[in-house]
Amino acid sequence: MEIITSLNNGTIKEIAKLKQRKYREKTGTFLAEGKHLYEEAKRCGIVKQVLLRADSGLNVEEESVLYVSDEVMHKLSDTVSLLDIITVCRIPKAKEVSGNKVIMLDGVQDPGNIGTIIRTAISFGYRDIILGASTVDIYNEKVVRSTQGALFEINAVRADLTIIIPELRQKGYHVYGTALQNGRPMREFVPVDKIVLVFGNEGNGVSDEVLSLTEKNIFIEMETFESLNVGVAAGIAMYYFK
Amino acid sequence: MEIITSLNNGTIKEIAKLKQRKYREKTGTFLAEGKHLYEEAKRCGIVKQVLLRADSGLNVEEESVLYVSDEVMHKLSDTVSLLDIITVCRIPKAKEVSGNKVIMLDGVQDPGNIGTIIRTAISFGYRDIILGASTVDIYNEKVVRSTQGALFEINAVRADLTIIIPELRQKGYHVYGTALQNGRPMREFVPVDKIVLVFGNEGNGVSDEVLSLTEKNIFIEMETFESLNVGVAAGIAMYYFK
Repeated sequence: MEIITSLNNGTIKEIAKLKQRKYREKTGTFLAEGKHLYEEAKRCGIVKQVLLRADSGLNVEEESVLYVSDEVMHKLSDTVSLLDIITVCRIPKAKEVSGNKVIMLDGVQDPGNIGTIIRTAISFGYRDIILGASTVDIYNEKVVRSTQGALFEINAVRADLTIIIPELRQKGYHVYGTALQNGRPMREFVPVDKIVLVFGNEGNGVSDEVLSLTEKNIFIEMETFESLNVGVAAGIAMYYFK
Repeated sequence: MEIITSLNNGTIKEIAKLKQRKYREKTGTFLAEGKHLYEEAKRCGIVKQVLLRADSGLNVEEESVLYVSDEVMHKLSDTVSLLDIITVCRIPKAKEVSGNKVIMLDGVQDPGNIGTIIRTAISFGYRDIILGASTVDIYNEKVVRSTQGALFEINAVRADLTIIIPELRQKGYHVYGTALQNGRPMREFVPVDKIVLVFGNEGNGVSDEVLSLTEKNIFIEMETFESLNVGVAAGIAMYYFK
């Protein structure tokens, strides 16, 4: 077997570029680190290419396998520990929103928060996620790592929220924003089918423009002015409306 | 004013040791970074000493102020950005658990998760937190930073959970564990007064020993075998029972 040992190898340089959003979008691919994510990617049929650490002793049955040195693996991975495998995955094609329970993110910035929200969504049966332009890329390696496979099970749709909200409402969806102030207390709400829950930016919440387009806006009742982490707030609302 | 510029200064070395749990426990003090936490600490009356970056232009009215160089400030702080102020705070004395809503942690390891749980607890009116031996120190700088002051508002009690659970039950508290399996679905529960909610380790949940001592055990109903982040699970349960 041929082992790539040079950091200047053309293919390795191309793969390393997938750490940047613009190259992920240009190529329609992203990186998933480690064996568990390889297996999940395989199960979902999105494996494009596999990089194996030559000394790992791992074997996989794939059309395209590259064997690389420890040094190359280190360069490509985002974690401190030495990985045995990195998978180049195809970004799944977004499907039309069709589930009964939908999440929408307006300007969520922290990859850890997005990862938490996606894991919680899958736990509670929310299978579609709509991402506004100002929300971070979910194929960012931190999101990929923190969702540990849940990412591959969700239908992710990028959209202009000001366009898609009226469309969804026309299709019978109840689009509920979450508001830091001026919303109605969540306990006044009765869970309904065909729901879209909108969560917002860590500092500023859902934008006023989006809140003006929703059917209703929810406020999670608190005892203090302390603000909830958006991942926690999303979890509470997703459980309530599931 | 005298400015400490040497990293070998005896006082600076003592303060730097507060990054280690054993020195925090030995001295009954911990470090809080930045202006917001200084103000919160002052409001709570737990300021012991203040370190100011000499070039910051900041002024504070405190009995004990040390002026330090940028280099010394860098050494003491945990963050990349240069701080203007670090506060040496007194660890508040634990009071007897007296609130109606109490949180108990059994082996929670991640400082970010603890920080999230404390912020959520304060938001929902849980004012006592009981920490088992295997739970990380809440005066760890990552917890201090992530709670941003909520930490100073909670009564934190270290205890042997196998001893305190029976004591609390005797005092009329309903101690509910959260279980990864075999608990009763949360929606079967009616919120009660005098409640203690127990959350567990990120990988293994609440220990079997603790689950055997609780009055009842709760299971948060999910659609999949995906596991919830403990900070999210805690938020959902705290909201439900608040």
